[in-house]
Amino acid sequence: METKRSHDAIIRMAQKAKIACAQMALLSSSVKNEALRRMAEALLKGKAYLIRENTKDLNAARRQNYSKPIIDRLTLNEKRIGEMAQCLWDTVKLKDPVGEVLAVFRRPNGLLIKKIRTPIGVIGIIYESRPNVTSDCIGLCLKAGNAVILKGGKEAFHSNKAVFSVLKKALHKTKIPQEAIHLVSWRDRASLNVLLAQERYVDLIIPRGGEGLIRFVAEHSRIPVIKHYKGVCHTYVGPRADLKMARALCFNAKVQRPGVCNAMETMLVHRDVAARFLPLMITDFQKAGVEIRGCPRTRQIIGKGIKRATAKDWEEEYLDLILSVKVVDSLEEAIDHINTYGSHHSDAIVTQDAKEADLFLRSVDSACLYVNASTRFTDGYQFGFGAEIGISTDKLHARGPMALEELTTYKYLVYGKGQIRT
Amino acid sequence: METKRSHDAIIRMAQKAKIACAQMALLSSSVKNEALRRMAEALLKGKAYLIRENTKDLNAARRQNYSKPIIDRLTLNEKRIGEMAQCLWDTVKLKDPVGEVLAVFRRPNGLLIKKIRTPIGVIGIIYESRPNVTSDCIGLCLKAGNAVILKGGKEAFHSNKAVFSVLKKALHKTKIPQEAIHLVSWRDRASLNVLLAQERYVDLIIPRGGEGLIRFVAEHSRIPVIKHYKGVCHTYVGPRADLKMARALCFNAKVQRPGVCNAMETMLVHRDVAARFLPLMITDFQKAGVEIRGCPRTRQIIGKGIKRATAKDWEEEYLDLILSVKVVDSLEEAIDHINTYGSHHSDAIVTQDAKEADLFLRSVDSACLYVNASTRFTDGYQFGFGAEIGISTDKLHARGPMALEELTTYKYLVYGKGQIRT
Repeated sequence: METKRSHDAIIRMAQKAKIACAQMALLSSSVKNEALRRMAEALLKGKAYLIRENTKDLNAARRQNYSKPIIDRLTLNEKRIGEMAQCLWDTVKLKDPVGEVLAVFRRPNGLLIKKIRTPIGVIGIIYESRPNVTSDCIGLCLKAGNAVILKGGKEAFHSNKAVFSVLKKALHKTKIPQEAIHLVSWRDRASLNVLLAQERYVDLIIPRGGEGLIRFVAEHSRIPVIKHYKGVCHTYVGPRADLKMARALCFNAKVQRPGVCNAMETMLVHRDVAARFLPLMITDFQKAGVEIRGCPRTRQIIGKGIKRATAKDWEEEYLDLILSVKVVDSLEEAIDHINTYGSHHSDAIVTQDAKEADLFLRSVDSACLYVNASTRFTDGYQFGFGAEIGISTDKLHARGPMALEELTTYKYLVYGKGQIRT
Repeated sequence: METKRSHDAIIRMAQKAKIACAQMALLSSSVKNEALRRMAEALLKGKAYLIRENTKDLNAARRQNYSKPIIDRLTLNEKRIGEMAQCLWDTVKLKDPVGEVLAVFRRPNGLLIKKIRTPIGVIGIIYESRPNVTSDCIGLCLKAGNAVILKGGKEAFHSNKAVFSVLKKALHKTKIPQEAIHLVSWRDRASLNVLLAQERYVDLIIPRGGEGLIRFVAEHSRIPVIKHYKGVCHTYVGPRADLKMARALCFNAKVQRPGVCNAMETMLVHRDVAARFLPLMITDFQKAGVEIRGCPRTRQIIGKGIKRATAKDWEEEYLDLILSVKVVDSLEEAIDHINTYGSHHSDAIVTQDAKEADLFLRSVDSACLYVNASTRFTDGYQFGFGAEIGISTDKLHARGPMALEELTTYKYLVYGKGQIRT
């Protein structure tokens, strides 16, 4: 009974969001920006309330012995609320993508055709843990003229509800329709399934979180999903690499922040430089506490002190200070390894040979490919997009870092003077 | 047992296509064009064989009392084979989209980022009846650097097999990998389901055919699908329309070719011009054999001689000489009607009022919107794309007519000099 009622409520939410998105598409940038500013102020003003509600989640998480990283991601404090407000102010500064003319062409019969950027409509965001996602995503979706339905993780139940209610209240005095933002606060997976079945009202689902959640969403959704399951990123050190540069790049890609999707998980080294490169490199890693899992040739060079990599290691996203290392015979073998075991996210080559770099760039089937740079740059901010709503390893619609433009679609406007088809 | 074997064969096909698409991505335009030319010649040379095999399908279709339009769509004759060859030659002339630089930007840290158009990978095309789709789709997919897996309808079994074998043989002397094109020739829906589950190898599914087939594909596919279910297209005649122009446009949109997705199915007329416009317009239609189904106000104006439109009529794609007609009170009512009952395909307004046109263009949520032109122009050739692989009413990746560009994706190439993230 309770379930039935909550499911009906989700369907009504989706219907209302669909109606609101028609109004959203017509709003000027200044109306949207004014709303974002009010929302930012409201977060700062609501600080005490937000922290109080967040404490409920934190206490529950501690009672359930959640891991330290989860509790950290869950925590709202003065600094983090300030960052959430700042994210909304930053979104104000981003160029409004709606209405951008992507192409104009005139046909021989005189028809003038314009391809125009428009909002997508209703976007569903499914996420875990971090309560800041609630305000970040609302800001970006609204700025791109979309309505949004959020479903956060049950561990952040009180925090998300609090953030959402503060933002929703801030909309009261703006021209943004109240029904443009929604939070699904039922905590069961059945509610998620109801949301994922609303293909009539919801245009796009973006899941953000662990691989388990994302696979669940991709398998159960009847709405298009843009996602990345994981980031198994590689750096290939070629035979003509600047080895000093390679050491710095590989170290950065693995160690600077190991828990994120653009960190390196596997290092590939050409056999011609392996004996020179690996001992120094692996010493660096070991000093930083990185556990190495090597192929037989790596172990031959470094000694049996390092673990043997198993077949499973090549497709593992460690998200930790662990690295698999493989010596390869050729660029082709490196490319083949990356295309076979990688996750099509971010992969790098270190080389001074432009031809080799070119073949790597053309042959590796990943969203972002690097020559002589760290894979850690795959990020909407680092790319200069000013924001990031996620990273896509899919090939349709959006690939790589996604920001405002990726939250839009287009339509064709055709201007005639009575043309008919003969 | 037989089923198991055919299913394994489909999985192997998908695997081989995936391997071939890596090679395809590296081919130059001239290699691809040479292959298209050879395929065109092979079709012309194989004419007698193709017609012989097609006769088998036609005889079976007649035995099973298939409708005349289906038998017409199924027929291959000298003229049609010539058109198939011509389509391949036309594809040669199209600009190769692969490698196009979509954006270039330099970051403050010196990183140079290029956004480059690349092939999607392996594309599955599911279609019915028309054997020309076999060669048209192979041509377009190859030109955009993709591998392709085709699954035609069982009614065109022999014809598709013949066209495919002629094209595949033509590839022998080219640098296109043999495994870049595949035809699933098992005729059961279970085989289709196996294909739709190969998300590891197949990147995109495009279904072409009746609404039933497309719904089946969309519901069963784990691979992204780009589609349109149907075209319920509208023309709205506003209060400030040039009524003579409106008559010509509406007549063209309904009558010129009623069996296609961009034909008008519902005509909306503002109440202020209904009494002047409808009698003449409906006389035109009736002379052309169009059955009218009217709302109460239409019947008030025209007389009870015309059928009453039921609720179902507003979302019906007749694909025939039938038209539903509704008198509306305002532009807003027209917009609301189109967004509620339409299929988000192609909709037109007839008006001399630029403000009214603008509100229509901004508010109607369809792929193609027309001011003072016939909806019949929604077509890749009419838009100047030189080809059409389908029309999308989806909002992600591609919307409206799809041609070569829509068969591509992009990747980011990032050029550094040792940059690391701090």
